[in-house]
Amino acid sequence: MPKISVKAQEMPSSPIRKLVPYADAAKKKGTKIYHLNIGQPDIETPSTFLKAVQTADIKVLEYSHSAGNESYRKKLAGYYQSYQIAVDASEIIVTCGGSEAIEIAMLTCFNAGDEVIIPEPFYANYNGFSRASDVTIVPVRSYINTGFALPSISDFEKVITPKTKGIMICNPGNPTGYLYTKAELEALKELVKKYDLFLLSDEVYREFCYDGKEYVSVMHLTGIENNVVLLDSISKRYSACGARIGAMITKNKEVMAAAMKFAQARLSPPSYGQIGAEAALDTPASYFEGVKKEYIERRNFLVDELNKIEGVFCPKPSGAFYCIAQLPIDDSDKFCQWLLESFNYNNQTVMMAPASGFYSTKGAGTNEVRLAYVLNKEDLKNAIICLKEALKIYPGKTN
Amino acid sequence: MPKISVKAQEMPSSPIRKLVPYADAAKKKGTKIYHLNIGQPDIETPSTFLKAVQTADIKVLEYSHSAGNESYRKKLAGYYQSYQIAVDASEIIVTCGGSEAIEIAMLTCFNAGDEVIIPEPFYANYNGFSRASDVTIVPVRSYINTGFALPSISDFEKVITPKTKGIMICNPGNPTGYLYTKAELEALKELVKKYDLFLLSDEVYREFCYDGKEYVSVMHLTGIENNVVLLDSISKRYSACGARIGAMITKNKEVMAAAMKFAQARLSPPSYGQIGAEAALDTPASYFEGVKKEYIERRNFLVDELNKIEGVFCPKPSGAFYCIAQLPIDDSDKFCQWLLESFNYNNQTVMMAPASGFYSTKGAGTNEVRLAYVLNKEDLKNAIICLKEALKIYPGKTN
Repeated sequence: MPKISVKAQEMPSSPIRKLVPYADAAKKKGTKIYHLNIGQPDIETPSTFLKAVQTADIKVLEYSHSAGNESYRKKLAGYYQSYQIAVDASEIIVTCGGSEAIEIAMLTCFNAGDEVIIPEPFYANYNGFSRASDVTIVPVRSYINTGFALPSISDFEKVITPKTKGIMICNPGNPTGYLYTKAELEALKELVKKYDLFLLSDEVYREFCYDGKEYVSVMHLTGIENNVVLLDSISKRYSACGARIGAMITKNKEVMAAAMKFAQARLSPPSYGQIGAEAALDTPASYFEGVKKEYIERRNFLVDELNKIEGVFCPKPSGAFYCIAQLPIDDSDKFCQWLLESFNYNNQTVMMAPASGFYSTKGAGTNEVRLAYVLNKEDLKNAIICLKEALKIYPGKTN
Repeated sequence: MPKISVKAQEMPSSPIRKLVPYADAAKKKGTKIYHLNIGQPDIETPSTFLKAVQTADIKVLEYSHSAGNESYRKKLAGYYQSYQIAVDASEIIVTCGGSEAIEIAMLTCFNAGDEVIIPEPFYANYNGFSRASDVTIVPVRSYINTGFALPSISDFEKVITPKTKGIMICNPGNPTGYLYTKAELEALKELVKKYDLFLLSDEVYREFCYDGKEYVSVMHLTGIENNVVLLDSISKRYSACGARIGAMITKNKEVMAAAMKFAQARLSPPSYGQIGAEAALDTPASYFEGVKKEYIERRNFLVDELNKIEGVFCPKPSGAFYCIAQLPIDDSDKFCQWLLESFNYNNQTVMMAPASGFYSTKGAGTNEVRLAYVLNKEDLKNAIICLKEALKIYPGKTN
């Protein structure tokens, strides 16, 4: 039997994956699980999107342009311009989800063995894409006591080596919910300029910035236009994760030309998703206002309730729909598994993502969990009750 | 400005890509182009597919399972079983087009630097995926005078080295249209067994086998179940290229488990495409009979007409919807460009794919072109007239 590749042997699993069998077993026993573990919103996809797909007049479902339909890219450029991101259709490649944008950007910018610095905790699938392209992720640690603010520039400089080829951020952040300030991004800009690095920025949660705080894109930074690659997705914006429509955007013509060759090799992004996404650009502002209001209420409720529990600390995030909470427990992997395997309160329990999976540094985040507030408030309330009751009796409680 | 990766610099373009600017210029001048250059069928997508998407009752367009919806995989297993391919839902990963199936299979089976032997001419995008995963394609040549039959096993053995990790075929073949016989596949099986290689087989043209010839899948070969990976797509089967739905199939549990980690990193295949594809499994046999009849008529017409032209030789393929023709010309790259740039007949011309792009061996296929018979007969007739007239006056004609 031929051996699989070393890469395949070493491909990391997602931090939630190992809990799935326990969740399945709990469901079989009739336990209701409140899923705070994944970023699958319960918010309805806008009808603009859904109707456009339903009424599309298609006889032959053809390949689209490898960069995506021109009509979509043109209209999408207008969307970015409304965020003061000055791009045109030729600077956009429509991808199969934000995932493919990450993948193509990594293949285009980084050689095997190159290092990319990423503030941790970070989106766990970055590990998979870096493994697939043989890129080494070098973490710089951010901390819960600052709400996961950008690590100091000197922390970045400490880990820069001749192999460092780029920095990658997620803003607003998954899993932290942290929204980088203009000052933080300006500091990053100077670093990027100084070492001539690529700056990849995953900004799929742009629509989810709260408390009147300003969203600053890496595309707003002047003087590093050739360093910046924006990674985007409509999955969260329109609650359309299944559409598999994202985008890779850059003003660097060399990057764009090379990325197009990867895009051409895979032929085209999904046609239906593009039709929906193009129409969804006309989604009325009221939709987003409603969604944002809903998320703010959920966040406020969840974070307040978490902080009321003795020994729990949860900084209030300004963006996305995640928060990381520190719990009075020995080990969040064990705790999250115990919640599914050995606990229920009135036949209900809660599933969360152990934060250790979002850190590269061994031993980091072991008493932290990530919670996605993608459930309605009634369910959130029940989830919090479960968590409270669980912490009363969990054998590995530390205080 | 940071440098793009070596991989990106070396990414090959598709053999047709360089002709696109000439085609665009010809169109601007008002010349009608008959596109025999790409495998985008003009056949209508079955209404079973389109209606299912139109009437899908979706509120939240969610991620699907990373391996694809279970309901789809179960029904798809039934489809394969109808071809005597004994697989179940757990042996299938639904991918974003056949492209992603190739990509994941390569990442899973091959290390950087490994060699995979592919009979040439072969589908040009294999070059892109092998470059992306740092795998080296080693060609073994097939020839037009045998209709591109499988090269002899001794030709394969001549290029086997300690780095050889697999063999990859396309059956029925793009760009050749050749359908491998049972004897050829049995011979390949012995070779695969002898050297314990992976055997990847791209069988996306399964529905397009003609003249009563038997389709033999690598999944029919007994004793190499752990070596075989089937790569598939619904793009051609249902004329649904834009759906971006393919599949990677294997009975090798280790390959499947590792491939799932790549699939999980990119979250899920497109939801709409899966809905359409699942419904399309109920497409009545009459649809395929009609499509097959149409392609056979087109093939017969095209191949017969080509062979009537002095100095032209085109073997009659038994599958897919491509043929390769040898023309009395100096260089097919030049000729195909000349057709777009300097020729028209009654304001019409024809676009074909120079076959050199389908060979790895330098200098191979320089007097060959690939023609896709994806046009209706009236257009095919006009295309042939253009080609005939062009060959009368092409300055680089060789006889």
